[in-house]
Amino acid sequence: MAEVVDVRSRILAANEEAASALRSRFHADGTLVVNLISSPGSGKTSLLEATVPALRDRHRLAAIEGDIATERDADRLRRLGIPAVQILTGGACHLDARQVRRAVDDARLGVPDMLFVENVGNLICPTAYDLGEDFKVALLSVTEGDDKPFKYPAIFARAAVAVVTKIDLLPHVGFDLDAVRAELSTLNPAGTVLLTSARSGEGIAAWCGLLEARLAAKRGGAG
Amino acid sequence: MAEVVDVRSRILAANEEAASALRSRFHADGTLVVNLISSPGSGKTSLLEATVPALRDRHRLAAIEGDIATERDADRLRRLGIPAVQILTGGACHLDARQVRRAVDDARLGVPDMLFVENVGNLICPTAYDLGEDFKVALLSVTEGDDKPFKYPAIFARAAVAVVTKIDLLPHVGFDLDAVRAELSTLNPAGTVLLTSARSGEGIAAWCGLLEARLAAKRGGAG
Repeated sequence: MAEVVDVRSRILAANEEAASALRSRFHADGTLVVNLISSPGSGKTSLLEATVPALRDRHRLAAIEGDIATERDADRLRRLGIPAVQILTGGACHLDARQVRRAVDDARLGVPDMLFVENVGNLICPTAYDLGEDFKVALLSVTEGDDKPFKYPAIFARAAVAVVTKIDLLPHVGFDLDAVRAELSTLNPAGTVLLTSARSGEGIAAWCGLLEARLAAKRGGAG
Repeated sequence: MAEVVDVRSRILAANEEAASALRSRFHADGTLVVNLISSPGSGKTSLLEATVPALRDRHRLAAIEGDIATERDADRLRRLGIPAVQILTGGACHLDARQVRRAVDDARLGVPDMLFVENVGNLICPTAYDLGEDFKVALLSVTEGDDKPFKYPAIFARAAVAVVTKIDLLPHVGFDLDAVRAELSTLNPAGTVLLTSARSGEGIAAWCGLLEARLAAKRGGAG
């Protein structure tokens, strides 16, 4: 077990180093980087599909898509006219900073104003891997149940923004929004909680507003 | 990297050994063991909540619940009157055979006819860890999207049974059931696909029938 812990420590240390270099590069480029994390099927790609049309006329957008298999998510975003690089992790349950660096080196991405990094569908493994992002976003769909923040506390504690997705389905599922807000607030008192539906469009303007405010702040208000 | 691969190989080999011993023990006890795997919030516990009342009068049932944090799932099953042992994995994204052995050694579980092992909510990590089960069940809720089998091929290829859950929500989501059936059939031509709704009860009788048939088969038809 000591050996396992040691190997894991070295992997995380190497990741931290790569993430730190990436963060410097994104700072120099003025690129806002968002690391999107959720269970499979919580609506990460759907949220981006709703985001891109709202922002693409004002900002250069790009995406890095992490998956075990298939180019499906990158293809969905390319259809909206933004560059997207697919990282296939094989069996790995999260992206790491070196994979993101290789993707950023791909000339197709250009130097975007906002770079969305859609992590592998997983509420656990991506938590510990810094990708040089400005902030993490944890998505939770109302169909997954209102017990999830305390069941997966690490990611909801670390994500600066929690997005409750698929709120158009609220009338059809038992989901106690107040209980979820209370758990999120306990785990991350300074965090922001947004409610969205990619289908109805509800909450997308607030989400895009948050992204634009963060971009402006990163660029010292020169937006 | 060679070192990481080596450590991982040894971990898996140790797991195989523990799983093999567990399988012999379950065989001797005549206990049918089902390893339930899915994303967070696909409805593993809800499926068990619908299963228990249908089977508890005819069979001794027990559950082992794997989670990162909280006893919530074990508590839900205890309320139905069956013994349930909660394994908290801390940060680990899957159960392993040694954890299951310790849980089985817990006198509260007794020697059940059917033992449900609810893995940590994750479509990736649990795939490689044999727990001595008779078969794996992969759950996919209709709210997660119809693209998931090919995006997470390993688990859907290995699970003898795929359960499409929350089918009461089909009218409210875009979910191409035929496409999912085709992907599941490609990944696992011999697999069984069931459709269920824990809320409406649809498909629960077929699922329970499958469990009873497997139990009878394991006991040489003496059921």
